Amino acid sequence: MTQNNMFTYECIAQDGNARAGVFHTPHGDILTPIFAPVGTQATVKGITPAQLEEVRANLVLSNTYHLYLRPGAELVAEMGGLHEFMQWPHPMLTDSGGFQVFSLNELRSLDEDGVTFRSHIDGSTHRFTPEKSIDIQEKLGADIIMAFDECAKPYDREYSKQAMERTHRWAERCLQAKTRPEQALFGIVQGGVFPELREESAKFISSLGFPGHAIGGLSVGETKHEMNDMLELVNAILPADKPRYLMGVGSPEDLINSVLRGVDIFDCVLPTRLARHKAAMTRTGRMNLQNASHAHDARPIDEACGCYTCQHFSRAYLRHLIVAKELLAGTLISIHNLSMLLELMRDARQAIIDGRYQDFAVEFLANYNASSKK
Amino acid sequence: MTQNNMFTYECIAQDGNARAGVFHTPHGDILTPIFAPVGTQATVKGITPAQLEEVRANLVLSNTYHLYLRPGAELVAEMGGLHEFMQWPHPMLTDSGGFQVFSLNELRSLDEDGVTFRSHIDGSTHRFTPEKSIDIQEKLGADIIMAFDECAKPYDREYSKQAMERTHRWAERCLQAKTRPEQALFGIVQGGVFPELREESAKFISSLGFPGHAIGGLSVGETKHEMNDMLELVNAILPADKPRYLMGVGSPEDLINSVLRGVDIFDCVLPTRLARHKAAMTRTGRMNLQNASHAHDARPIDEACGCYTCQHFSRAYLRHLIVAKELLAGTLISIHNLSMLLELMRDARQAIIDGRYQDFAVEFLANYNASSKK
Repeated sequence: MTQNNMFTYECIAQDGNARAGVFHTPHGDILTPIFAPVGTQATVKGITPAQLEEVRANLVLSNTYHLYLRPGAELVAEMGGLHEFMQWPHPMLTDSGGFQVFSLNELRSLDEDGVTFRSHIDGSTHRFTPEKSIDIQEKLGADIIMAFDECAKPYDREYSKQAMERTHRWAERCLQAKTRPEQALFGIVQGGVFPELREESAKFISSLGFPGHAIGGLSVGETKHEMNDMLELVNAILPADKPRYLMGVGSPEDLINSVLRGVDIFDCVLPTRLARHKAAMTRTGRMNLQNASHAHDARPIDEACGCYTCQHFSRAYLRHLIVAKELLAGTLISIHNLSMLLELMRDARQAIIDGRYQDFAVEFLANYNASSKK
Repeated sequence: MTQNNMFTYECIAQDGNARAGVFHTPHGDILTPIFAPVGTQATVKGITPAQLEEVRANLVLSNTYHLYLRPGAELVAEMGGLHEFMQWPHPMLTDSGGFQVFSLNELRSLDEDGVTFRSHIDGSTHRFTPEKSIDIQEKLGADIIMAFDECAKPYDREYSKQAMERTHRWAERCLQAKTRPEQALFGIVQGGVFPELREESAKFISSLGFPGHAIGGLSVGETKHEMNDMLELVNAILPADKPRYLMGVGSPEDLINSVLRGVDIFDCVLPTRLARHKAAMTRTGRMNLQNASHAHDARPIDEACGCYTCQHFSRAYLRHLIVAKELLAGTLISIHNLSMLLELMRDARQAIIDGRYQDFAVEFLANYNASSKK
């Protein structure tokens, strides 16, 4: 692989292991740390691109597995690629499809060359290989694309080792298969909760010259303590001049703890999924807006929040929309939840630049009640 | 009733029987002819107030029956009224609840004083009278409120006569019950498809001094020919210095034909309901966006349309959202459909001002295929 000058990372401030940086892409700069909303099927559920811009989203993720099945990568390519198709003119990232395919469990069978699986939509048979994943992602045309990896369950050491080794062989095949200089391919570190495997994986993946690195296989059932240990170990090895992306993590406390350990990029369906399940995310915990306690509450979700939802609507109105089963509930709560996580990361970035991230993180975690259900 | 100076209508141009006017309300001027989107449960389904403003909506309707049941008129009043509750700072209208209650059929029983009915939500028993309807509508606080009326099936002459006479007695009771000068109460003409009943009703309702008049009981099963005849007859009687509101009508051809006969205001759930059923409204007919013919179509719904949806998204993308069952489909098609009807009425208004409405209507109807399903 030729080193790609379109994609460079600059660390503009470091505070402990926390980093504030800029990752340059053909669709604009990504200011890190950053949270990326997920648009699984080429749409962040219930939200227009204009509303995404209003909450100051920048990087948006979409899913290769879903788009491959529907509407198909060829159709997206014919329509000018994913940016044009879904009208998101800012940076985009596609995953490799690996995580979704391995999540199909009994619907998939694995061999050294790839994975054969059955569609969750119609049961039809398909096959992903590292080369196929790259081909699909090149048709979709996101700025950042991901190596095809195998995500093992966290506590099976032998399987974790095999999956990690296969992930390494597949990473090399993805690099070979990649053709388009306008896309950055990120390698993925695996290894479960086993320090020696994570160390081996971080060293091997780092050696391949990717313009960025992801940490896979975390937030899949291990403890917070194990996750933090793995992040510290891996980030001490991953090169400091490349961005680090923790896949599938989106709770506020995980973001704050992971930034503390040197992570730059996050994605998760959590803010929009919680919104469809009536829960608002705040800096003190989750708020279940369906609760009767909100029925007469004229206050917004968060009086300090500047989002469209909090600038206009009362908890009483949001609860009414939920009780009346109105679609607008999910949209308005999603706007708030996305805004909250995006602003949290902007505040984290400023705290790093100001050299006060430790205090920021300690204060945030002291106020935050992860199990709160107001 | 004291004549209310807050609500005056000025006819600024007339072309044949078509009128361009201004109706002044405490929340702003309504430029007629106009189409009012329906926000049944204090939300236009799937659309934020900001998106409603973007499609240049002005008057929005909400439903007394639904809001009375959920969240309750007292709660809306406690939250500062409907404008504040749903954050629509422009003119609003509430219906009387009559149409919904009479639509409950076997769930309601009628007497001279009012209607006892069972909630469609939980089967609980409730009672509406003219006084109760006005009380609820005063708590909701819309600019325009409606008299409690009885809408009969169109072809039963004896029942139409009884319902009309009761509507007249109830109209007088509504006028008596009304207390708030910042709301305009409109009377409703009934009488089915029977010219002598419609004539009697238009004369009687006109005599009561309402600041505006509605025509009820049309678009409920009668022919287009019968509807047009009734509109001509009624509008020849209703005073020219008050606005005329045709309730529950929203198809483009009905709007054009009714403006031609002197109607000023319309409301209907059609544009948002069609959107949720995958149909786009255009000036040449309806377009079913789920059809496979749109799968590879890079064009917007209407290349001449300036709405957010048409300025950004292809038919291929909208079809993808529909097939993938994404909420954004309903939102984006609703934005287009509302924009289309609102713009049609603005164009009609300009044509009236320019003295070319007859040509405008003839040309529109020649191009429009009411049964088209592209």
